Parts: sequence; C-alpha cells; structure tokens
Amino acid sequence: MTGYNIAIVGATGAVGTRIIKMLEQSSLPIADVKLLASQRSAGKVLKFAGKNLQVQEAVPASFEDVDLAFFSAGGSVSKKLAPEAVKRGAVVIDNTSAFRMDPSVPLVVPEVNEQALTKHQGLIANPNCSTIQMVVALEPLRQEFGLKKVIVTTMQAVSGAGNRAIQELYTQTKAVLNGEEPKAEILPVAGADKHFQIAFNPLAQIDVFEDGGYTHEEWKMIHETKKIMDDEDIQVTATCVRVPVAISHSESVWFELKQDGATVAKLQQLLSEAPGVILRDDPTRQIFPQAVQAAGQKETFVGRVRADGEQKNAFHLYCVADNLLKGAAWNSVQIAESLDRMNLLQIPHN
Amino acid sequence: MTGYNIAIVGATGAVGTRIIKMLEQSSLPIADVKLLASQRSAGKVLKFAGKNLQVQEAVPASFEDVDLAFFSAGGSVSKKLAPEAVKRGAVVIDNTSAFRMDPSVPLVVPEVNEQALTKHQGLIANPNCSTIQMVVALEPLRQEFGLKKVIVTTMQAVSGAGNRAIQELYTQTKAVLNGEEPKAEILPVAGADKHFQIAFNPLAQIDVFEDGGYTHEEWKMIHETKKIMDDEDIQVTATCVRVPVAISHSESVWFELKQDGATVAKLQQLLSEAPGVILRDDPTRQIFPQAVQAAGQKETFVGRVRADGEQKNAFHLYCVADNLLKGAAWNSVQIAESLDRMNLLQIPHN
Repeated sequence: MTGYNIAIVGATGAVGTRIIKMLEQSSLPIADVKLLASQRSAGKVLKFAGKNLQVQEAVPASFEDVDLAFFSAGGSVSKKLAPEAVKRGAVVIDNTSAFRMDPSVPLVVPEVNEQALTKHQGLIANPNCSTIQMVVALEPLRQEFGLKKVIVTTMQAVSGAGNRAIQELYTQTKAVLNGEEPKAEILPVAGADKHFQIAFNPLAQIDVFEDGGYTHEEWKMIHETKKIMDDEDIQVTATCVRVPVAISHSESVWFELKQDGATVAKLQQLLSEAPGVILRDDPTRQIFPQAVQAAGQKETFVGRVRADGEQKNAFHLYCVADNLLKGAAWNSVQIAESLDRMNLLQIPHN
Repeated sequence: MTGYNIAIVGATGAVGTRIIKMLEQSSLPIADVKLLASQRSAGKVLKFAGKNLQVQEAVPASFEDVDLAFFSAGGSVSKKLAPEAVKRGAVVIDNTSAFRMDPSVPLVVPEVNEQALTKHQGLIANPNCSTIQMVVALEPLRQEFGLKKVIVTTMQAVSGAGNRAIQELYTQTKAVLNGEEPKAEILPVAGADKHFQIAFNPLAQIDVFEDGGYTHEEWKMIHETKKIMDDEDIQVTATCVRVPVAISHSESVWFELKQDGATVAKLQQLLSEAPGVILRDDPTRQIFPQAVQAAGQKETFVGRVRADGEQKNAFHLYCVADNLLKGAAWNSVQIAESLDRMNLLQIPHN
C-alpha cells in the first residue's frame, strides 16, 4: 500500500477519536496508522477503517518512520513530544496551543491561509476551535471589503474541554432534574481552584484568567485571528462563555468593514459562495444556524447577517460549527490534505 | 387596614406568582389583593401572605375600587383591559410590550429614570427583561462618562417565555439524556410556524423576526434603552439568544463611553456603589456573575469589566439578573414603591 505512515497522539480523546473518523473519510493516501496516548490509555483497542488497532504509549521512539503526526493530547505532551517527532522526520499538525503563537510555526485554516503552509519547518499549528469558525465566516467578507474590527461573544460547547466535561454536563443535568445538588469537578478549567455548575448555567470563564481580565481563550481569539489573517491591525476583542451544550460552538460576531459599499445581500452572496461555509439565513422562514444541526458536520454555518443600523460598514453575523470537527479534527485533516496536495509532505512510503 | 387595593392580572403565570412574592416582601401598604387571570385559570387558589385567595376571571368590572394593577398576561390582555383599569381610577404597571413605546407612557427602571413616573397618566410600562438589567449596569457609567454605543449579546433563560417553556426545557432535556427525540412545541416563539429544540441547543431567535433581520426582542433592547435613558443618540445594537437555562439572563455587553478618563478600576468603583448592582468581578479568584447565583435575587450582578485593548473609551461588562424578578416582577413592585414614595398613587383607602 502506498501512502503516509500516520500517528495520532491523544487517539482516545474527544478530538483524537474524531481525527480517526476524519482520516477514514479522507482522500489522503494512508499506509499505516499508529494510535498513541498516555500510559493510562495504552492497551485500549480502537478501530480504524474496520481494523482493530491497539493504542500504544506515546514516547519519542514512537515517531520513527512516521510521516505525519496529529497531536491532541494537551499542550505539555505536544511541547515534549512534537519536537521529537519532527526530529525523526515527521510533519506534526498540533491541535494544542503550545506552538500557535511561535512565529516560525504556521497557524492554518485552509479556507483562509493555506499558503502559510509553504513556510512550515515540520510543525504546523491548528488554531483554537472558537477562532477557526469565526475566521472561516469573516474571510470571504474581508477579501472583498477589508476587515477593521471584530467584537465576538462565544457560546461554547463543553466538549471543548474534553469527553470528561461532556460527562460532567450530563451528570450535573440529571442531578438538577432530580432535585439533587450537582457536583462540579472539571469546568470551567480542570486545573483551576474552583469548579462551577455548567448544567443550566452559562460560565463566563473558558481557560484561565490572564492579563487585563481576559481569559486565555479570549486572548487566543484575539492573537490567533490576527496571525491567521496576517494583519496585526485588525482590532479583535472577545468574550468567551461556556454554555450547557455538548457539541458545536455558537458565536455572535459584530464586525466593521474597511471599505464602503457592503450590503446584507452582498455579504450573504459572498458567504453562500465561500469555501467551508453554509449560509443558513432566512428570517422569514426562521432559518438560522443551530448547534444541533452543525454537530457532525464539517462546515461552518452562518446566518443572522444584519446591518448595525447606526454605524456605517458595521454588521452582525452568527456562526455555528462543530468544535470537534471544523474546530479541531477536521481542520487538522484538512491541513494534511493541503500539505499532500501542495507536495509539502515527504514522498509517501512504498 | 390602611393601604392600596391591588389587582394582579396574570396571577398564575411565571411573573404573576413572583409579583405576589415581591408584594409580600414589599413595604407597600396593602389593603386588599385581587388575583385575576384568564377564564381558564379562574377558580385556582393561591396564597398571599398566608391567606388563600381564589383567582377570578379578569373583566373590566374587576378593576372597580382598585388603586394599583399589575398586568402580566400578555400584550393582548393589556391592550384590552389596562385602559379599562385606568378608566376606573387604577394606576396600571404593565409588564407587556403593549404600551412601552407609547410616548405618553413612562417606561421605567427606578435605578435609571424614576423621575419619568411624575408624568404618568395612569399607565406605566415595565421594560423588557433583557433591557432592564443592561440599563441598570450601564447607567452609573453613563452618569459619569456619557454613553456613545452599546453592542450586546444576550444569553436568555427560557422562563422569559413562561412556565410552559421551563417545562419544555426540562422535558426535552430528559428526552435527550434518554436518547429519545425531543419534542419542540413552544420555543422559540409560541405562535410561530416552526419550533426548535432548546435542550443543549442555543436558539438565536427570541420573539418574531422583524425589519432588517432583527427579532422583536432585539428591537426592544434598542428602542427601550434609548427611551429609558432618554437619549435617542445612544447607538444600540443587539443579538438575542435563548439558551438552555431556566432562570436568569446573562449578557455580554461591549460599550463605548463619550468622555475620556475611564479606567477599569473607576468603572468597578462606580458599579460597586450603584443602586441595584452587585459587583462580582475578581478574575484572580474566578469571581464573575452566574445565572444560578442570580436566580431568586433582586439585584443585577456585574463582572468581567475589561477594557477593549484597541479602542479608546471602549469596555466590556457581563451582567446577570433574575429575568422574572429584576426583569419583571421586582421591577414592577419597585415602580409601585417609587409611586407610593413620590405620592403618585391615589391616597390609600382607609
């Protein structure tokens, strides 16, 4: 079989299991797949394309003879093992925030900045889930009219914090419905001092608090958007909220365009023709993007396109995408497909 | 007993039952309470201050000898019966949107524009729940620095659509947890053509769609804010989203002040001293407003006060309040207390 030897680090996680699915559906030529995880998960058996594969512990030697490695096992694992994989000749697509802001690492959403891949030095970063869907929606508008400012409020699914957070949402929800006290052990941040109820309760904290009262998630949206769009002058500010939803992030995006002349109809037309976007925008028929409809889909759904009635060149849109697919697994596999098409991967093994 | 004869129209509803509670806790002198509702609810028995009261059908003659009537039985009931109540000498505090934008009707949030009550002609409108908590949070900042622009995204509880919507949220949630298909019959709008799942699924539609792709709820926030603050020049734009939460609306508010000199510390100080506001803002200790903590409280909780790093005089805040109390029942009773204190009600019956 001709194709790439692929490793998936964090193969048993919410994103890892979806990378497996996305690879099964991909046209990427695959010779071999190696599932890697922590010692704790080693020995588990997962299926790839009908074959049983045993999960192995990820160690530096795991990457011998690997052409392409997907990492989604947390920042510390990526920091430790991604350089080991690159050293052994693998191209790494990293889903964590470990290398995203490293100037030598391309941060890529194929619909927006596929060309940035040409400069890769073995390591490519997959952006934060909440950033990806927003830039997919804004890019076609930016291409036509330029982008001056973005103000976004996110309503993010708990699956962004992993399978255990989904379990926590469901367990807490059952407790509340039964009139019991819900137990909070994971959200808003697994390692934080305090944990709060997510069942029937939005939490305006995603990741840790950092400078200026912003959370790490909010800073990610600000910095990553500028890097992906390669324009430090785009003003971006964000409020990130975790909501009691299992899968799909919903985002309320206000934006100001640089050039005159945009109309709602024109923006809708651009979105309807944009790669990776499905326009769901017909108020007369109550059509707007919904989390349950986006779950399991690869596209970013966009609707509620409206003009800010009192500020020139300012508009709203509302975008929804599966945070585990377009926000993570699918965007990563899409990057791999781009690398393959652009001849930026090693020649497949024979 | 010296006090007012009070009627509550829509006494059996989510807001009506809370008006009863708020009146029980109020210092307002009360001679008699009459519970009114539709024919369907007539005959039900509810308690007021330990006494059993039978609900009667609301008809024009119900308001004979009534000094003060609270209406929260839907816009059509208010349109029909509120003028009948006023004609019979009652002062009406109306919780529906029927008269809110009528120039002769004061639209009042006591913390913001109590003085507007002096111009009342028998009818006072209680603003929309999502508007009330936002203006309570913004007013102390506006007083000091002027307010130029507001961009708000709401995450609203289902109880804004009544007790049946709370039931729908819980029933659907149980269905999803049991792997069954959830049935949608009420949300997003009871009378609309289509109904959608709210369990684990935000809905970017509250009330019907109107001009420019905005919903009625969004237009309410825009128009009511200008009217309450008595300033047509404040730019307001809104995205209103229903989220799977039973009680308390959460709002992500970006705002631009008119005058220079505001700092986060100064805004926090103003908020900590503002009437009706409780500042919950300490990122280092993961303190920010939460829906479950606001439920059952009368105040508006404010936190996540931050500067927009790239636009002068622009900031964020995040406010949460019990939509049935400060958003409806408590604000209405507070208006009644203001009217009493300002001698704007009939002299109490002896």
